[in-house]
Amino acid sequence: MKKILFVFVLVFCSGCLPAAKNQITQTSTIDALLAGTYDGQMTCQQLLAYGNLGIGTFDKLDGEMTILQGKIYQIKSDGKVYRPALSTKTPFATVCNFQPDEQFPIQSADFKTAESIINKKVSNQNIFLAVEISGTFKHIKVRSVPAQQKPYPPLAEVAKTQPVFEMNDVRGTIVGFRTPAFAKGLNVTGCHFHFLSGNFTFGGHILDFELETGKCRIDKCSKFLLILPEDDSLKNIDLSKDKSKDLQKVEK
Amino acid sequence: MKKILFVFVLVFCSGCLPAAKNQITQTSTIDALLAGTYDGQMTCQQLLAYGNLGIGTFDKLDGEMTILQGKIYQIKSDGKVYRPALSTKTPFATVCNFQPDEQFPIQSADFKTAESIINKKVSNQNIFLAVEISGTFKHIKVRSVPAQQKPYPPLAEVAKTQPVFEMNDVRGTIVGFRTPAFAKGLNVTGCHFHFLSGNFTFGGHILDFELETGKCRIDKCSKFLLILPEDDSLKNIDLSKDKSKDLQKVEK
Repeated sequence: MKKILFVFVLVFCSGCLPAAKNQITQTSTIDALLAGTYDGQMTCQQLLAYGNLGIGTFDKLDGEMTILQGKIYQIKSDGKVYRPALSTKTPFATVCNFQPDEQFPIQSADFKTAESIINKKVSNQNIFLAVEISGTFKHIKVRSVPAQQKPYPPLAEVAKTQPVFEMNDVRGTIVGFRTPAFAKGLNVTGCHFHFLSGNFTFGGHILDFELETGKCRIDKCSKFLLILPEDDSLKNIDLSKDKSKDLQKVEK
Repeated sequence: MKKILFVFVLVFCSGCLPAAKNQITQTSTIDALLAGTYDGQMTCQQLLAYGNLGIGTFDKLDGEMTILQGKIYQIKSDGKVYRPALSTKTPFATVCNFQPDEQFPIQSADFKTAESIINKKVSNQNIFLAVEISGTFKHIKVRSVPAQQKPYPPLAEVAKTQPVFEMNDVRGTIVGFRTPAFAKGLNVTGCHFHFLSGNFTFGGHILDFELETGKCRIDKCSKFLLILPEDDSLKNIDLSKDKSKDLQKVEK
């Protein structure tokens, strides 16, 4: 009887068992982040209920988030990797309960080549993909972002002075998503990747890489759950404009 | 023991208990429908698992869908209201497990006035709303669309010859959603309403109305679940272009 009760409480209190199959879950929108909505809304603990692989940022834009095998890593603007408290909040993150449909070896690929290989493997551009590439990298170039203070500047301003870190001959894992063009404004369309080194000491938002050899795993996701802040934090933000140009400045 | 098993099967086979609170669930995208993706993907039965209030269309674009109190009504291009089989599929529909947060009387309002009243009640334009307005209408003007044959013409072509129906002095219910501007391409931004008369004999996609007196109920939804076809039916459709102008032709 206790078990029945437990399951019912689990199901009906949560409203929805979060970690659904083939589902990508996202808090807030990339355009809200571009506009400077950096206050965390969802805790890391809540986020992990929706997936074990993902990327994002933290409260006040305090660094880059990489989620691997259910663990959250915070790469701060000092270039170091931290393990945030589960109570730490995020203003923007994307996660998936990773269950790969495709797995294949990948060699001698930079960002563009890897993206092109993935696009050939899954030519339907109108579904979401979660992607994990683990391997050895000849070179990798990442960035992080420093925590901001109010009034928050737009992300394109922050990115102008972002610290960039490079490393040669490193083992590690790329984690990220391929987002369809129709989801423009919600997330970064195309491939958006973060990195974490195998020894958990180096990582960030990937600007470019030179993969030597590795394994790519892809989870095709036909479901996309967008979770907006329940408070009025998006109320006074104009999300009707096309922010593609701002995004381009931030991503590259 | 059987009960435990039943609940576990229910939860883990579905992956996610669908009818979550404050969540709007949608099959496919409005831009895919505009491009002529009219083949049904999700059955009415599956759709009802995600909500008890909603709007949409049917396989082959065979009429307008209104879901009220968990029952699906199909308003075909002959202007009549049918009850489709639960096995009937839909290529595009939006539903919600309706639990209103706001309820207020509304008088002497046409479409624009009603939209403006709703916008004042919930001024945060960056959340989704499910809306139900029941009352007496001096006048209401609706349209439906006829079932199409392959090769499917784009929706803007179909809408050119859509049958329009008008009625005076009718009781009934408006059902629909207010979609944020950032969800352009996914659904009709702003208010999108369907109608069903109280005697279940008249309805359709609303072009305009003149409400005499009624009651408006609003469910603020911070979660939006997009469910894409799992097959390749969206594979060869270019969803990267702005189809706002096509949509305008179709909606008015």
